[in-house]
Amino acid sequence: MTRADPYPSRVSGAAEVLVRKDPVVHGSASDGPLSGIELETFERNGFLALDAFFDAQEIRALRAEAERMRESTLEDEAAEVIREPGSAAVRSVFAVHRSSPIFAALARTPRLLGAAMQILGSPVYVHQSRINYKPGFRGREFYWHSDFETWHVEDGMPRMRAVSVSLSLLESNVHNGPLMLIPGSHRHYVACAGTTPERHYERSLRQQEYGVPEPAILEGLARRGGIIAPLGPPGSIVLFDCNTLHGSNGNITPWPRSNVFLVYNSVENALEAPFSGQEPRPAHIASRDFAPLTLCR
Amino acid sequence: MTRADPYPSRVSGAAEVLVRKDPVVHGSASDGPLSGIELETFERNGFLALDAFFDAQEIRALRAEAERMRESTLEDEAAEVIREPGSAAVRSVFAVHRSSPIFAALARTPRLLGAAMQILGSPVYVHQSRINYKPGFRGREFYWHSDFETWHVEDGMPRMRAVSVSLSLLESNVHNGPLMLIPGSHRHYVACAGTTPERHYERSLRQQEYGVPEPAILEGLARRGGIIAPLGPPGSIVLFDCNTLHGSNGNITPWPRSNVFLVYNSVENALEAPFSGQEPRPAHIASRDFAPLTLCR
Repeated sequence: MTRADPYPSRVSGAAEVLVRKDPVVHGSASDGPLSGIELETFERNGFLALDAFFDAQEIRALRAEAERMRESTLEDEAAEVIREPGSAAVRSVFAVHRSSPIFAALARTPRLLGAAMQILGSPVYVHQSRINYKPGFRGREFYWHSDFETWHVEDGMPRMRAVSVSLSLLESNVHNGPLMLIPGSHRHYVACAGTTPERHYERSLRQQEYGVPEPAILEGLARRGGIIAPLGPPGSIVLFDCNTLHGSNGNITPWPRSNVFLVYNSVENALEAPFSGQEPRPAHIASRDFAPLTLCR
Repeated sequence: MTRADPYPSRVSGAAEVLVRKDPVVHGSASDGPLSGIELETFERNGFLALDAFFDAQEIRALRAEAERMRESTLEDEAAEVIREPGSAAVRSVFAVHRSSPIFAALARTPRLLGAAMQILGSPVYVHQSRINYKPGFRGREFYWHSDFETWHVEDGMPRMRAVSVSLSLLESNVHNGPLMLIPGSHRHYVACAGTTPERHYERSLRQQEYGVPEPAILEGLARRGGIIAPLGPPGSIVLFDCNTLHGSNGNITPWPRSNVFLVYNSVENALEAPFSGQEPRPAHIASRDFAPLTLCR
């Protein structure tokens, strides 16, 4: 049995660029906390940076919780804990909106959840959450990628109707490997070459090898749209479309960078079987609990 | 026979910070092209950035020569050619002031050579020259180091009386892994832990493992002095003291960064036997031709 795939990738030897088939913004200014200008910016660039979205006190609590989780997982063999390539240092902890009441509440914060529902035009659930720890001195790069490409191929997310939040727990400055995005890249689907090996996620979360856009395609998109790295104090957020190309350089400075990553998916875009034809990834990476989130007031 | 070592490093298990025993600037404004303010800036920070020091036409010629040398060395097994770790891509070509008439003339440009003689207060020779190619997409980091620490331990450079020029052949921007320096770090000698393996240079030019400052020391110096990454169009230069801590992050952007690196040493600071007690490194890395350069007009 074959099914139609609106966004084929990793199905042949050739990389190509397809046109996005889905809207970027589903709601309007009257539907939630974001203004008309903010929604237009998101629609045009594929992301929206909001400085100091959370205040110092909120960030202190989130940072303490992130530290607690890192330390409590240091000796932990749990699948939720991803380590740096070639080291025992913790790179990411997944599914924190399940394991931590504080991050569970964060995902339900009206300002955040409201913005996600406004952009996606429906109730939403958390597809993935994690804390990324990017240590100083030896922090590794995250190479360019579209999250949607992976979520579609490996998780069975059918359409582009998800939005990510990157929340800085520490200052992002020009030197410490901040998130970089390619404005406008969300309007193109960069289908990647190659096929996906079985259980690819066990390695890809440490270092990506498949689902990687071709250099010539990246160069074309970056030449057209440029590259923007939103900077800011702790508590700043970047809302970005699931298909916006992003990445970050390594970090040799003494200043670590740490962020919380939350992905909201529309309940009308619930996961199906992976388009790779392989087994789905585990629930801590790609949730299959599609119950809509309710606001935490 | 033991000899006195003014700057011991890699001689025990412990890292420590010593005070610099040498002047930073030897000449004055009347001795050359740099102004009093420029000399003071160099003395205080350990470096001086000068935008668009070479014009577009000069840079076109230098860039063409750098490309020619990279391509002519692609199949080359010469020791002067250093490749990226885990790849055949050319990372550096050494001793270009010997192998290329164009780079030989660059080293004798009155503006550059005059500034070096002014800072060092004597005739000078070229201790080392190279072109660094930092490719886009997969450009690797250069970790923090003091050049002098290596030149002292591995090459036998007795005192801190050398100055480096980094000349950008391509634009340096915030995203493509520009040179970062720690202002004020040149006044401290960061003695490193460990001993040097034999023929260390065969690996260290690809990825540094010894002569690496401790994280706590780097953090202290960066907290005090900050980190500065001079940016600018092609043709911009940074003059920096041999003992200023510097490094650069990796580069995942499509924009390569390429620079010429020229080191002038005072003829009164000619190399001796390496302070490690080991064999000296080859002449293409550490020249032992101490004949002073004459201006090329």
